[in-house]
Amino acid sequence: MSGDSFGKLFKVNNWGESHGKAIGVVVEGCPAGLELSETDIQPFLDKRRPGQSAITTRRDEKDQVKILSGTVDGITTGTPISLMIENQDQKSKDYSEMAKIFRPSHADFTYQKKYGIRDVAGGGRSSARITAGHVAAGAIAQKILAKALGTDIVGYVKSVNDLVLAMPSEQVDVSLIEQTAVRCPDLALAEKMIKRIEAARKNGDSLGGVVECRINSVPIGLGEPVFDKLEADLAKAMLAINASKGFEIGSGFAGTLETGTSHNDIFINQDGKVKTKTNSSGGTLGGISNGMPIVFRVAFKPTPTIIKEQATVNLAGDETVFHGRGRHDPCVLPRAVPIVEAMAALVLCDHFLRFRAYKGLFDIN
Amino acid sequence: MSGDSFGKLFKVNNWGESHGKAIGVVVEGCPAGLELSETDIQPFLDKRRPGQSAITTRRDEKDQVKILSGTVDGITTGTPISLMIENQDQKSKDYSEMAKIFRPSHADFTYQKKYGIRDVAGGGRSSARITAGHVAAGAIAQKILAKALGTDIVGYVKSVNDLVLAMPSEQVDVSLIEQTAVRCPDLALAEKMIKRIEAARKNGDSLGGVVECRINSVPIGLGEPVFDKLEADLAKAMLAINASKGFEIGSGFAGTLETGTSHNDIFINQDGKVKTKTNSSGGTLGGISNGMPIVFRVAFKPTPTIIKEQATVNLAGDETVFHGRGRHDPCVLPRAVPIVEAMAALVLCDHFLRFRAYKGLFDIN
Amino acid sequence: MSGDSFGKLFKVNNWGESHGKAIGVVVEGCPAGLELSETDIQPFLDKRRPGQSAITTRRDEKDQVKILSGTVDGITTGTPISLMIENQDQKSKDYSEMAKIFRPSHADFTYQKKYGIRDVAGGGRSSARITAGHVAAGAIAQKILAKALGTDIVGYVKSVNDLVLAMPSEQVDVSLIEQTAVRCPDLALAEKMIKRIEAARKNGDSLGGVVECRINSVPIGLGEPVFDKLEADLAKAMLAINASKGFEIGSGFAGTLETGTSHNDIFINQDGKVKTKTNSSGGTLGGISNGMPIVFRVAFKPTPTIIKEQATVNLAGDETVFHGRGRHDPCVLPRAVPIVEAMAALVLCDHFLRFRAYKGLFDIN
Amino acid sequence: MSGDSFGKLFKVNNWGESHGKAIGVVVEGCPAGLELSETDIQPFLDKRRPGQSAITTRRDEKDQVKILSGTVDGITTGTPISLMIENQDQKSKDYSEMAKIFRPSHADFTYQKKYGIRDVAGGGRSSARITAGHVAAGAIAQKILAKALGTDIVGYVKSVNDLVLAMPSEQVDVSLIEQTAVRCPDLALAEKMIKRIEAARKNGDSLGGVVECRINSVPIGLGEPVFDKLEADLAKAMLAINASKGFEIGSGFAGTLETGTSHNDIFINQDGKVKTKTNSSGGTLGGISNGMPIVFRVAFKPTPTIIKEQATVNLAGDETVFHGRGRHDPCVLPRAVPIVEAMAALVLCDHFLRFRAYKGLFDIN
Repeated sequence: MSGDSFGKLFKVNNWGESHGKAIGVVVEGCPAGLELSETDIQPFLDKRRPGQSAITTRRDEKDQVKILSGTVDGITTGTPISLMIENQDQKSKDYSEMAKIFRPSHADFTYQKKYGIRDVAGGGRSSARITAGHVAAGAIAQKILAKALGTDIVGYVKSVNDLVLAMPSEQVDVSLIEQTAVRCPDLALAEKMIKRIEAARKNGDSLGGVVECRINSVPIGLGEPVFDKLEADLAKAMLAINASKGFEIGSGFAGTLETGTSHNDIFINQDGKVKTKTNSSGGTLGGISNGMPIVFRVAFKPTPTIIKEQATVNLAGDETVFHGRGRHDPCVLPRAVPIVEAMAALVLCDHFLRFRAYKGLFDIN
Repeated sequence: MSGDSFGKLFKVNNWGESHGKAIGVVVEGCPAGLELSETDIQPFLDKRRPGQSAITTRRDEKDQVKILSGTVDGITTGTPISLMIENQDQKSKDYSEMAKIFRPSHADFTYQKKYGIRDVAGGGRSSARITAGHVAAGAIAQKILAKALGTDIVGYVKSVNDLVLAMPSEQVDVSLIEQTAVRCPDLALAEKMIKRIEAARKNGDSLGGVVECRINSVPIGLGEPVFDKLEADLAKAMLAINASKGFEIGSGFAGTLETGTSHNDIFINQDGKVKTKTNSSGGTLGGISNGMPIVFRVAFKPTPTIIKEQATVNLAGDETVFHGRGRHDPCVLPRAVPIVEAMAALVLCDHFLRFRAYKGLFDIN
Repeated sequence: MSGDSFGKLFKVNNWGESHGKAIGVVVEGCPAGLELSETDIQPFLDKRRPGQSAITTRRDEKDQVKILSGTVDGITTGTPISLMIENQDQKSKDYSEMAKIFRPSHADFTYQKKYGIRDVAGGGRSSARITAGHVAAGAIAQKILAKALGTDIVGYVKSVNDLVLAMPSEQVDVSLIEQTAVRCPDLALAEKMIKRIEAARKNGDSLGGVVECRINSVPIGLGEPVFDKLEADLAKAMLAINASKGFEIGSGFAGTLETGTSHNDIFINQDGKVKTKTNSSGGTLGGISNGMPIVFRVAFKPTPTIIKEQATVNLAGDETVFHGRGRHDPCVLPRAVPIVEAMAALVLCDHFLRFRAYKGLFDIN
Repeated sequence: MSGDSFGKLFKVNNWGESHGKAIGVVVEGCPAGLELSETDIQPFLDKRRPGQSAITTRRDEKDQVKILSGTVDGITTGTPISLMIENQDQKSKDYSEMAKIFRPSHADFTYQKKYGIRDVAGGGRSSARITAGHVAAGAIAQKILAKALGTDIVGYVKSVNDLVLAMPSEQVDVSLIEQTAVRCPDLALAEKMIKRIEAARKNGDSLGGVVECRINSVPIGLGEPVFDKLEADLAKAMLAINASKGFEIGSGFAGTLETGTSHNDIFINQDGKVKTKTNSSGGTLGGISNGMPIVFRVAFKPTPTIIKEQATVNLAGDETVFHGRGRHDPCVLPRAVPIVEAMAALVLCDHFLRFRAYKGLFDIN
């Protein structure tokens, strides 16, 4: 209830602080019989880890995952899978100055006021480092979905500041995504984005942008009426990611400029399968997947960490100045891609198991 | 688990179908000692009900709420509050034709495929009529928040199609909102919106738009780290509303065009209270309320119900044509306002109770 | 979170007060496609209702159930089933005296202290009348279990005071249970029990006893490791019933007098099926059903309502005397039988759906 | 949903297998500001650990706990507390024979059938070793309760086989409990129990018994109506402990032999405080604590591990013989005491936080 768990039938319990002894997740509800070892999870963490390229933070942390429970001879047993990543960068520096000040647009202030205490080192629990656990758990969810349903989840950078990928999701060549450090599938645009990010770093500033995610091969029927709509749970998952400020599915905010006539997705029969001609809906109707690709976008604000002087207040509430310094991540977008994919996988996997619980119990002619 | 409940400590269990005997909600977790009668709830339902003005659907339903449990002599007892609204418009028409066809961009198709059966009349469980329950429960949540914290939640129409209210939320004159049927606090713009909606109705077409919501007097500390961030739960709540396609908080998608320097909210000391100079964050930091107004927006697609011929498929999957007819709601925006407010109230009230559970147990100097 | 919901995938939300307008339950998670009408539920309520025989309370209430949602043409649609029973015996009497006093061993005192207010009429929310909702929901669960698995749940009175049915559960002739008003399947013993209960009534006193329940045809695999063991959830369900003071499964408390050698259940192969020779375990191993009948017992205290003068305190805490009078139920045992069966059905149905969520996803050779 | 979590506001997520790399718990919902270090937890684990005395299993495992997250400078921060115990006794032996057979009255059979796979070593997840996590989490709960409410939880052995402690709980001298290895507060009886257990060990047999638990200084108002009654959650907690077969509160099963007149607890005013003269209720009324001591008992079966030949079946279902050998715990009762206390603490702490969420929000005169 303290907000550290996600999911109902495929449940993730996240723990740890940025510079504590370790971080980790306990994954409850992974079905038995899945082949699973660290090598299934590590590549996903490598996509998220700091220091992976010239445009991410230069802090270099390997994020080596260990499976502590839930498998025997490399097969899941249906019991909780405990995943742990030991922190290499444990509390070492002197944080006494940091402890007295609130960095603008960071969670320092709200944690301090809510709890009366906070783990200052590296942002403690509010650090984006905590999303390594999401990615590790998401790797398991992605394997389950791929194996059971053939579902694949592909995220990429849609925009960095005003550099926007114009092509619609169905035209994206997914093989291009990992070809650049910025994970935008248009190589020329990616080049511009990288330059823009490098310029921001030099300037001690930071940039925001949008991640788009497309999920293929989702069966019809995932998602529940009324509150636990598939897009509602996706929205929650995405707004739970550090630095995210918005979510839209299908036509999203731009769809408000259309009329019903243009926006409605006409049903067609394509080789015996019911599909829709367009996909304004983004893959759900009434909160339930309709078999079309799920397409959504997530807005990320410019990282609040900048290497500049900023006015702020201290613990006592007195106005003062904060001098940002050291390594910083001038744009979270490239590293946000695997986190968005992981969170989407958690939502889908949970809804897939919920679907199985009720499906086909009583047949109706 | 079938998705019909919302909240953890202030919990709403929604039931009913559009044209069944009744619809209702059971509100679990309302603290004892609150004065509560039907007159506290009815005005909120009146703001949502069909037939309230010339620009909403002409179906006229009174939506009279009854409190069946949970109070004694007009005071809540801490036990579940069962609220029921009897349907005046019960199954009467012949729906046999409708049962064989899937209306474009409605939930007919996904409900049929998920369950093998659906309540055809009026859309059954997928009808926006079900949100009357949200509004009734939200009325209680709003009363609790107002009485305990002085919190007030104000929604209004920010845009209809490309007619957009330019002024920022802090400049809105809330007394103007209810002066027009469209609930936009700029009277001249409201007039244009109403005309546009009337034109769409005549044309048998429909329009989308954006609702903005501003919440004042939220104490510092609501929201939980990692997954149950305040904005994450708000995002879920808003994407659970029928026809919504997007959510953004604070700077939202537009914030991705800024840099960290301009986007960061500087802390200031205003008459002894810590505030932020700007509010790009929209009232939360790290998922926890920071004492500034919470400001968010929700995108609503053009209503899928249009009075036109549309291609579609039937139950068997064969292509056919659907002829929309009868009364329709050419733009859900005005009626969406009280639903957005209600869902926001449910989220805040739940987080307020969660906050109370832990707060101040062990004091830290 | 206020304790009015039970179950996770098959969930019951109970609401109402003894003498309010109505009582009811919302059943979430009933799979689609089940034939269901009021006539499936009413007989179960008739077994629980007051006034059904000479040895129960003479208050006569019909407890007529109405299905308000969740079915179409007598078939469940997978959406919440709202069940309502209007109270015939609504607030009418003068309860002002009762409001000032705490009846011994009733919940008056704890409700008043917890909430600062209570619904005095008929015990309000603490009344056993609330279990009518359990029975109604349980009727649906029993139908699901019977249809999907052939499971049948049979409860009966094992003892009234020191009159104890000696025969083990496997020897009970279930056809005898309903032949007497006391629901004990030994007709001679039943006669004695009835006489004992009538004597208690005349004396203004009350009696306790034990209900035993036997569940046949439970598939192997229901129940979860560690916390949500099948017997743990059964224990919770049974201790949630008004007036219950104890639960035991299989050998129970008497099993503590055995040694491992006599207590262990030897596995045998009976016509190709693995069974156990004895059933000390009562049908579960490690919290998971093993395919043997589930057998458990529930202790019910003597009803606290007695027609005698009793010392007590008033609202102000001053010592005073309470004069019990009017109709009373001298022994809850016969009416407890359908409640025990219903709660067991809720537990099993929930675990059955949980089992389906994970089962057979990845096959292991 | 796989059954590995317990509690709602004070939540424990248990993971690990008997002979895996480690076992652990994540404690969610511990309020900020509590002094906490390993030395607060280790003594509780020492009371549970194997090899602590001559009458427990001779397997010697230190069960050294590590706090991996959730504290800073020895103070809780309100974030999840991850506790880990590395297993000294990791998979080493050859379990290939064990893998082919089902030990009588163990969970081997049901785990294999439910999951199609099981961790054979030391019983894997079904091992009582997993309760070390309960005890570690319970230590935190006990510290919270003691500090915030002065609550103290005392368990002891009430019986071993037919050797029964006759004195009522209020007469127990708690200082005697830890004076003998068997944890029975009657030293002469304890001596007999120890001899009986030693004889059972020599004989390769095992014994059952009853643990009684008394909780003092519980405030009025913990527990919720209808389903989440305090005794219902205690019952669930106790039946979740390995080898437990029964639970009773207050008068329990023996209370069924009384009449209402003798069983009812008369309210009295003792020095200005409302108490009850007797405590048949065991500290709750209507599921809510009444301020009297909570007294309950838990039945534990004779350990299924015995050093004898027993008939059984193998994986294929063929009848065969199982030869028990090696170290065994002839009676779990002494080691069950700290587990019972820990589980009770988890229940109370959870209900205490739930109580705080709602309490005193609206005052009623």
